[in-house]
Amino acid sequence: MSFDVLQDQIKAKKNPTAAILGAGPDDIPPHIFKQHTARYGETLEAAAEAALEFHLGLIDALADIVPAIALSCAYFEALGWRGMRALETVIAYAKEKGLFVIADGKRADLGGSAAAYSAAWLGETAVGGSACPVFSADCLTLGGYMGSDAIKPFLKDCTERDKCAFVLTRTPNPSAREFQDLVSGDRQVYTAMGDLIQRWGRGTAGKYGYQALGAVVGGTQPSLLKPLRRRLDKTFFLVSDPAARGGVSADVRWAFDELGRGAMISDSRSILRAWSKAGGDGTNYQDAARGAAEQLRDELRRLITIF
Amino acid sequence: MSFDVLQDQIKAKKNPTAAILGAGPDDIPPHIFKQHTARYGETLEAAAEAALEFHLGLIDALADIVPAIALSCAYFEALGWRGMRALETVIAYAKEKGLFVIADGKRADLGGSAAAYSAAWLGETAVGGSACPVFSADCLTLGGYMGSDAIKPFLKDCTERDKCAFVLTRTPNPSAREFQDLVSGDRQVYTAMGDLIQRWGRGTAGKYGYQALGAVVGGTQPSLLKPLRRRLDKTFFLVSDPAARGGVSADVRWAFDELGRGAMISDSRSILRAWSKAGGDGTNYQDAARGAAEQLRDELRRLITIF
Repeated sequence: MSFDVLQDQIKAKKNPTAAILGAGPDDIPPHIFKQHTARYGETLEAAAEAALEFHLGLIDALADIVPAIALSCAYFEALGWRGMRALETVIAYAKEKGLFVIADGKRADLGGSAAAYSAAWLGETAVGGSACPVFSADCLTLGGYMGSDAIKPFLKDCTERDKCAFVLTRTPNPSAREFQDLVSGDRQVYTAMGDLIQRWGRGTAGKYGYQALGAVVGGTQPSLLKPLRRRLDKTFFLVSDPAARGGVSADVRWAFDELGRGAMISDSRSILRAWSKAGGDGTNYQDAARGAAEQLRDELRRLITIF
Repeated sequence: MSFDVLQDQIKAKKNPTAAILGAGPDDIPPHIFKQHTARYGETLEAAAEAALEFHLGLIDALADIVPAIALSCAYFEALGWRGMRALETVIAYAKEKGLFVIADGKRADLGGSAAAYSAAWLGETAVGGSACPVFSADCLTLGGYMGSDAIKPFLKDCTERDKCAFVLTRTPNPSAREFQDLVSGDRQVYTAMGDLIQRWGRGTAGKYGYQALGAVVGGTQPSLLKPLRRRLDKTFFLVSDPAARGGVSADVRWAFDELGRGAMISDSRSILRAWSKAGGDGTNYQDAARGAAEQLRDELRRLITIF
């Protein structure tokens, strides 16, 4: 239940990395892009086919190195229904290759709409008497602003189907402070959100002690991570390290518990963009992604021992 | 600029209603549903075709009564890429019929991902040298938890393309209080969000004085609406009235300014579901929706005079 499946995969690969996938126009190697625009013109169809090819190639390159991928839904949505069709294929392929799939959709809604989002990403949609799988990810990112009403429908699918979700808590961007760092009583607003997440998840802890509802935590300052790790002792963290583009910060270790569990680091797109950073033409994008993923894994192995 | 287009349409139809569309499994009349499952079986394809037919029919029925529709994206997403394809068609058809289209997606993201969401819903996606329209709504609902970084990309499309957006502020659900009613200094957290919205929108006010960034406000208690209307004097409100299922509350008038502007009421799905509430078999769903929309319009006309 809950984050057990993910923790098991992290342990098996000795690597707590979630590779961020989801490609903007400049992220796709030109040779792939041109191949599809030559066929379909400069259309959403061409862009969706190019994104599909690129992501399947990345999954092939990464499947034995990283335990999980986090797919930025926005980039697929920007290609319309053809992009969403590509996303369905990408998720299915990644799961076939044994990867844990986090849909980074940051979804939030109430009542029937929340249940519909949950059906789309974690559950199944009922059509008459038939249950139809839709995007079928393993995990989804959520917004918690509307309170438990907006979380419960997802939590139901999590517990019934062995899925999990991360709720935005403290994000890594500069303007996070405008709202998340407001003080309420003896806490900042993001800590209040963290406390709610842990309360909402009550009763869903798995064998490692982590509940089905995790928290998105951005930044690696010890002043942020240390108290949050202590306070939210049943909450799995998805940590984005803004410094990860050029090697991981040693401070990410504060996100993990004393057994090296309870957290995973997202790579700030360094794996996806490794080919362009290397300055090549992108024909070697698979090797470049693989190399970046191995480097991040090895750095994390030096910092964290996972039991 | 900003909410001028919407306010003009509200004035022209003397009706500040946004009809909520987006259908769950039980919302679609059985005769439509069966027609498509007979052809495609109990599949997402059948469900998407049924949803498409139902919504085009509703738009035909409502186009001369309401100025705007608010489409719950979740219900389309629950049908996978075929649902998103249907949604593209629904939006295009509604715009063709002169309706103002609010995509109720509650999207939120940072950096390139936020820009991608904005391209999807308000702007265009660049494919090589070509700009491709995607869902092309007039307005999108957003979450503001991550601060201005998550709002700016949308605001850019709003100002350049005459679009607008609503940010979640005080939602109508019972659990809104868990987080939104926390006290920070001399304000509640939702008021702090409202203040941010008005600050972020600075410099985008149109001829009616409302900025391109509005606020989703749920509930009609005067204790909520009166101070919020006074404080957020440049912020257009999208008000959901939980009581609207059985007629609108007179208190909604507090959401409007002294000229009857600056707010619109969403109907809590009473129009979409009018046929099932009437107890019929749904073959008259268009008449039922039309009747419910006219009734809500007439009630609002008695409460608010729009200048």
